[in-house]
Amino acid sequence: MTTPATPIVRDILSKYESDNPGVKANLARILMQGRLGGTGKLVILPVDQGFEHGPARSFAVNPPAYDPHYHYQLAIDAGLSAYAAPLGMLEAGAATFAGQIPTILKVNSSNSWATSIAQAITGTVDDALRLGCAAIGFTIYPGSDGIFDAMNEIREMRAEAAAAGLATVIWSYPRGGNLSKDGELALDVGAYAAHMAALLGAHIIKVKLPTDHIEQKDAAKAYENGDWSTQASRVAHVVQSSFAGRRIVVFSGGAAKGSDAVYQDARDIRDGGGNGSIIGRNTFQRPRDEALAMLDRIVSIYQGGE
Amino acid sequence: MTTPATPIVRDILSKYESDNPGVKANLARILMQGRLGGTGKLVILPVDQGFEHGPARSFAVNPPAYDPHYHYQLAIDAGLSAYAAPLGMLEAGAATFAGQIPTILKVNSSNSWATSIAQAITGTVDDALRLGCAAIGFTIYPGSDGIFDAMNEIREMRAEAAAAGLATVIWSYPRGGNLSKDGELALDVGAYAAHMAALLGAHIIKVKLPTDHIEQKDAAKAYENGDWSTQASRVAHVVQSSFAGRRIVVFSGGAAKGSDAVYQDARDIRDGGGNGSIIGRNTFQRPRDEALAMLDRIVSIYQGGE
Amino acid sequence: MTTPATPIVRDILSKYESDNPGVKANLARILMQGRLGGTGKLVILPVDQGFEHGPARSFAVNPPAYDPHYHYQLAIDAGLSAYAAPLGMLEAGAATFAGQIPTILKVNSSNSWATSIAQAITGTVDDALRLGCAAIGFTIYPGSDGIFDAMNEIREMRAEAAAAGLATVIWSYPRGGNLSKDGELALDVGAYAAHMAALLGAHIIKVKLPTDHIEQKDAAKAYENGDWSTQASRVAHVVQSSFAGRRIVVFSGGAAKGSDAVYQDARDIRDGGGNGSIIGRNTFQRPRDEALAMLDRIVSIYQGGE
Amino acid sequence: MTTPATPIVRDILSKYESDNPGVKANLARILMQGRLGGTGKLVILPVDQGFEHGPARSFAVNPPAYDPHYHYQLAIDAGLSAYAAPLGMLEAGAATFAGQIPTILKVNSSNSWATSIAQAITGTVDDALRLGCAAIGFTIYPGSDGIFDAMNEIREMRAEAAAAGLATVIWSYPRGGNLSKDGELALDVGAYAAHMAALLGAHIIKVKLPTDHIEQKDAAKAYENGDWSTQASRVAHVVQSSFAGRRIVVFSGGAAKGSDAVYQDARDIRDGGGNGSIIGRNTFQRPRDEALAMLDRIVSIYQGGE
Amino acid sequence: MTTPATPIVRDILSKYESDNPGVKANLARILMQGRLGGTGKLVILPVDQGFEHGPARSFAVNPPAYDPHYHYQLAIDAGLSAYAAPLGMLEAGAATFAGQIPTILKVNSSNSWATSIAQAITGTVDDALRLGCAAIGFTIYPGSDGIFDAMNEIREMRAEAAAAGLATVIWSYPRGGNLSKDGELALDVGAYAAHMAALLGAHIIKVKLPTDHIEQKDAAKAYENGDWSTQASRVAHVVQSSFAGRRIVVFSGGAAKGSDAVYQDARDIRDGGGNGSIIGRNTFQRPRDEALAMLDRIVSIYQGGE
Repeated sequence: MTTPATPIVRDILSKYESDNPGVKANLARILMQGRLGGTGKLVILPVDQGFEHGPARSFAVNPPAYDPHYHYQLAIDAGLSAYAAPLGMLEAGAATFAGQIPTILKVNSSNSWATSIAQAITGTVDDALRLGCAAIGFTIYPGSDGIFDAMNEIREMRAEAAAAGLATVIWSYPRGGNLSKDGELALDVGAYAAHMAALLGAHIIKVKLPTDHIEQKDAAKAYENGDWSTQASRVAHVVQSSFAGRRIVVFSGGAAKGSDAVYQDARDIRDGGGNGSIIGRNTFQRPRDEALAMLDRIVSIYQGGE
Repeated sequence: MTTPATPIVRDILSKYESDNPGVKANLARILMQGRLGGTGKLVILPVDQGFEHGPARSFAVNPPAYDPHYHYQLAIDAGLSAYAAPLGMLEAGAATFAGQIPTILKVNSSNSWATSIAQAITGTVDDALRLGCAAIGFTIYPGSDGIFDAMNEIREMRAEAAAAGLATVIWSYPRGGNLSKDGELALDVGAYAAHMAALLGAHIIKVKLPTDHIEQKDAAKAYENGDWSTQASRVAHVVQSSFAGRRIVVFSGGAAKGSDAVYQDARDIRDGGGNGSIIGRNTFQRPRDEALAMLDRIVSIYQGGE
Repeated sequence: MTTPATPIVRDILSKYESDNPGVKANLARILMQGRLGGTGKLVILPVDQGFEHGPARSFAVNPPAYDPHYHYQLAIDAGLSAYAAPLGMLEAGAATFAGQIPTILKVNSSNSWATSIAQAITGTVDDALRLGCAAIGFTIYPGSDGIFDAMNEIREMRAEAAAAGLATVIWSYPRGGNLSKDGELALDVGAYAAHMAALLGAHIIKVKLPTDHIEQKDAAKAYENGDWSTQASRVAHVVQSSFAGRRIVVFSGGAAKGSDAVYQDARDIRDGGGNGSIIGRNTFQRPRDEALAMLDRIVSIYQGGE
Repeated sequence: MTTPATPIVRDILSKYESDNPGVKANLARILMQGRLGGTGKLVILPVDQGFEHGPARSFAVNPPAYDPHYHYQLAIDAGLSAYAAPLGMLEAGAATFAGQIPTILKVNSSNSWATSIAQAITGTVDDALRLGCAAIGFTIYPGSDGIFDAMNEIREMRAEAAAAGLATVIWSYPRGGNLSKDGELALDVGAYAAHMAALLGAHIIKVKLPTDHIEQKDAAKAYENGDWSTQASRVAHVVQSSFAGRRIVVFSGGAAKGSDAVYQDARDIRDGGGNGSIIGRNTFQRPRDEALAMLDRIVSIYQGGE
Repeated sequence: MTTPATPIVRDILSKYESDNPGVKANLARILMQGRLGGTGKLVILPVDQGFEHGPARSFAVNPPAYDPHYHYQLAIDAGLSAYAAPLGMLEAGAATFAGQIPTILKVNSSNSWATSIAQAITGTVDDALRLGCAAIGFTIYPGSDGIFDAMNEIREMRAEAAAAGLATVIWSYPRGGNLSKDGELALDVGAYAAHMAALLGAHIIKVKLPTDHIEQKDAAKAYENGDWSTQASRVAHVVQSSFAGRRIVVFSGGAAKGSDAVYQDARDIRDGGGNGSIIGRNTFQRPRDEALAMLDRIVSIYQGGE
């Protein structure tokens, strides 16, 4: 049973003031779903690791995860907000789990063997509609040689999606070009990446948790008076850079790591005013019981617990 | 928070075996919504009376109902399954109530001054998508001179809607041509109307509760051995005529009437195996408190109560 | 396992010399299907009676037939050549029975309450493709006021279907205009109706078994030297009128009747060189066991038995 | 005569839960065809060697194979499941063999003189429909510089094909870029290639039998605890990587080789849970009698024999 | 005067079994035209030299040939089978010579100054239709860097042409990439080029007469047991490589040369089972009388003379 939208959710939706009710309804579905429904916080399960890193690197550590149904069920049982995956992965379960959890069709994908920093379009807005998705997801690599092509693509797909009432999630991952390896996670770079996603019209922005490194010399001055030593302060800066909090921002934790680190990330995201986590490998690469326990703890943290 | 689909709902969805997951997801949203979520029963609030009968005949008896927000709120507060209305009516509240209740865009409409038994197309599938609707609704008047044109229209709109993952509700109201006034509500006519809607590909069929009158001479023989004296038996026949229960069938109670009659209708629909009620005037033409009390009772009846 | 096409089937296919291999493959599927596969004879189960006459008149005498799955299973179990039905009827079983029997989507339909002699378009070539059909079926009423509109429609749909490799079956039922009631079944009229279907590009022609009445005064002279007293001779004339046997012609037996009459029809169709029967009410309006026994006998007759 | 789908086939089809009945019907046709019909196993004859390697290298050793009809007849006489070839090759026999064996139109092709690792689009979905095909076939070269372009192409063609009820077979052959020559056949690479095909929406995945080489350093850890010494274990891993067996996977044996090796491949594919073989050069490059004997043995192996 | 198609021509046409009657009719027009009409042999006059080599190199040696009418008249007076030229060349005479000889619109062209091995599209299927052509002609350069683009183009143009009943002639000229200069005329290369044209759906294949050089190391083995010393044996291999004779193959003689060599080429093409010559410079670069005499002799050779 759908709970009426809470004041927090209504407030978030009100900031999407140029969007049609269809997009708002799909954002509302995500924001009202699961155990964090109504809190303005969200946890998304993304499973595009198979495309990006190959099946064994993604699932061998927890073999049931080779089955696409596993992830739908995990997201539902953990009470998460949405489940994001590429075309084939969604198709393999979309009828069985129809209407049980909002899905995000990842419409572009890269892979480990790519010889350029780019992505192929592997799904469409029509696919998202016929699969009953709430949103499309698109990755851009700001900094890469192909970024303008990618921006042209997301402009077209976002426009088409929004006209049909679908929300757009942009994964904004700086990479390539003149960016250093450290720079990809730098604070100034992450904030800039989030801002570009917002400017491109993302309804939900997904970035990585930034370090306190400052990559751009030209930007150093802007950061010199801030105290960026805590992760929460860096999260707050990314949120600020996403239209002063007018856009939903979720953070990814990166590669699988210890659970304490994962919980600390969640606390920092919460304390910095971020909207939540998009957490894949750290869950589906653990045994299901451990993953559910971890997600339970993360949800609790977002609900204000420890 | 969305509850996982119940076995009853899964079973209903499995009968829509040629539909894409998008259509199934929207049917699931309706079937999982509100107080009847998960039971396989549903109550829909339709507010197209203003178009059909004019505002004063529709709303003067309960003036708050002139405000489109009134109906959204009523449907939500009563824990109903969906809310159906024409374009303007939905647009006036779609953002405020985004994601709180599945909506059905009534895409054609008639009015009291019509000089032919027909309807104008007043909404589109694109409208339904941008407004975040779960379905489109379309009225046909089997028996009327223009029925073939209307069937041509619904064929096109249903195909477009289904490709985009939207369900289609067909209001099948026999009228005109060689049908007598009594015949419009005849059992054989109502069953035939439901069957035609099913053949046209309706995901949800809406017909009127039939009387025990048999209109068609050619059909008399087919009914002569049945006992059609109870309304539940007549409901059962309409359900049987809707692909032996493979399609969701909801019934309208017609003009405003005494609440006891309304409750008896709900019991008969339930006992005859119908999926629920689509109930407009009998609720919004009562004061809100009375309407909520009545809807509470109807919901209870569908939940198995008295 | 598919049997290689027999010489008889190859010969029939060779007469469709302007058609692409897709159309030939679909004709071959029908001609190689079931117990008559490879004989050049075929029996098709059509279930559009619900649309034309209403559900009770169609199914009340054998209630399991209200369920769309019943007809798929009957056609499969009886070893028939194909199953024809309108959109909703096919959709309700197309996934369950995928690939088990060739299906024909009836793309236009009339009903008992029609105030004109015409049909609505209720399905499309796109529907036929997504449902995995082998052919579309279309009814024309030569003689009716609207026949030119119907011909315009079938021209367009046949072209679209044939380009996509689908065969076209035309139900050619003279009716209306200046035709007398007896004339609808007259020999000259039936032969003319079959010829018009052939001229419109039908791959399979469906007409009614004609009587020995001659309707058209202008045609009387052409028939005066023939002996049309036997049904087989009349079938032979219809086949002759269908491009001298270059097109598949199947005959319907009309309303439900005694089984001896049905068997005699089959013998006459066979002896007159017709390709087979399209037999609906006479089967699904009997209990399943009786229907299977009757179809077994009909198949035996087409195989050369008594 | 078509046999009703077996429980094994029904189970396979049920895993294509987001596909329309047309796609399911075409998969069913392949799975019910020939001597392996109904077993869930399949053997496909592909003849695109002429395009890839030129006619003499492909056919000189068995000159009757220069004739396109030879391959249709071989596939039919051997009781195989489907025949795959490029446009011209199919057109040269599609009418003669219409409806006798499911065909797969190979819609892109490379050749021995290519100066880039890529393919030309040489056929279309419209071609596949007018030729009566059951599926389209498309080759991707994961790892190559042009892989993203190829993915964009297959996304569009698959969507168009699926809407028209055609299945899609993806030949996923890692090649180029940073992959070593040994790496092209590595276990981790083959599993990843199969997974990418599944994610792109392939209904049938075709990969090469992998060796026990592990190419990617990052993937080594994921494989270190497995025993990959048997080919069956490697097949099982590829099947696992194809959505845990939710997608049909067939394997190619590569260049012509001794028959014992071919039989062992079939046993390993069977024992590892693969769905079958796609076997070209090893059959049509032998005299027809030897090829039929070999295919008979392969079929027997898939039926559970030795 | 149109002669009824001979058994030889009927047999050739029957091999285009997937083509519509429009394509067959245009092939029949070419095969029934001129002095070789009905023999299954053909001689085509191509005049695209002006585009490829410039006017003076093409026509200065025989100035009347600057006039487009000259070539139409030459082809007609010599009793040839068809005349092929680029857009402007055909437009300059298409009305004057309407209906007098089948024409082939060369739809792509290169020129002497080209900086890449490629061609521009200089005519369309619409042009061919409005000019009354029987076919389009398209040149591909297998081996060149741009071959995949060219294949994409011919796929589209051939499909469009065939749908409109036009035949397609593919000039398949290996060039560029890794091919050596000698390799362009190698036997294995020419056979492969013809095979690729057949696979692309060419109705008439045009290749150069090959030498006995074998270019591809991988192909050497396939040729080692053959005796390729005679030109007729090499022609026979090219014909075999063109679907075992199921496609019409014509050969060009290359640069202008002595008439004895030209006659010997024709004898070899005839004796090897080729369908004829496409002969340009060797005729129009001679004075008209000499050209007519030469063509008379060539026609005689194809008729079985010396």
